[in-house]
Amino acid sequence: VRMDRGVLIAETRHGFVCANAGVDASNVPAGWVTVLPRDPDASARRLRDALCAALGCAVGVIVADTFGRPWREGFVNVALGVAGLQPLIDYRGRADQFGRPLESTIVALADEIAAAAEIVMRKADRIPVAIVRGVAEWAGPGAGTQLLRDPSQDMFR
Amino acid sequence: VRMDRGVLIAETRHGFVCANAGVDASNVPAGWVTVLPRDPDASARRLRDALCAALGCAVGVIVADTFGRPWREGFVNVALGVAGLQPLIDYRGRADQFGRPLESTIVALADEIAAAAEIVMRKADRIPVAIVRGVAEWAGPGAGTQLLRDPSQDMFR
Repeated sequence: VRMDRGVLIAETRHGFVCANAGVDASNVPAGWVTVLPRDPDASARRLRDALCAALGCAVGVIVADTFGRPWREGFVNVALGVAGLQPLIDYRGRADQFGRPLESTIVALADEIAAAAEIVMRKADRIPVAIVRGVAEWAGPGAGTQLLRDPSQDMFR
Repeated sequence: VRMDRGVLIAETRHGFVCANAGVDASNVPAGWVTVLPRDPDASARRLRDALCAALGCAVGVIVADTFGRPWREGFVNVALGVAGLQPLIDYRGRADQFGRPLESTIVALADEIAAAAEIVMRKADRIPVAIVRGVAEWAGPGAGTQLLRDPSQDMFR
């Protein structure tokens, strides 16, 4: 997507656009790198199935990583894989406080939850999981792929 | 920045890159639009001063709005103005669990807090403020302008 000043922004096979295609040499032994999950939604579903079986209750799972963004400094956590959670909230058509329908508002709920979770996970403290409460109203079918913009609809590809 | 299919992505005088330069016809009476604050950091400082005086304790303030992003569906809340909070966490040089220094990890804390706050603010429920607890360790001087990437360092401008 872009290559400049020693930074490579690449699109992965999944459709994620991020630095070095998500390949990371942090938090692994010397000589090793980590790559993104082959199918993050399948990973989320497997974790969800195991957690639901172990806990005896329904949970949603987000598999996330920190990505940089154009125009803004700093990384934020984003949702790669999602299971058991609606990743987008579509407010289109909902009336605002003056009775006019909202026109284009779709909120990336799973990305906002992932961002919230990162605050307590830190980067080098070996905290692999954050538990998020209070979002059960959005439980239901969903996948991280819903958060990927179709390239044909993307003004930046 | 981009203009296509009836969508205009513009950079504001502040340096925010967003749809329609942040001009929004939602949640205002017919015939009106809202614009972004002239100086979001000054707005955040004013709110912080008033809140600290009224409450008798230190608080941080983030003034936020929902922005779209390239490559991904859905809006997320981002921090425009910041007062009393460190907006970025710089992990560079911190050792990972294998003792190797993290190389490029700066986390946009204020954007992650703004994203978390949006989850409870919704879009048309007239909730103007969310109270965030548990982030006092990052209290201190800071400004939203720190989250704006210098255009000379931006691969996407």
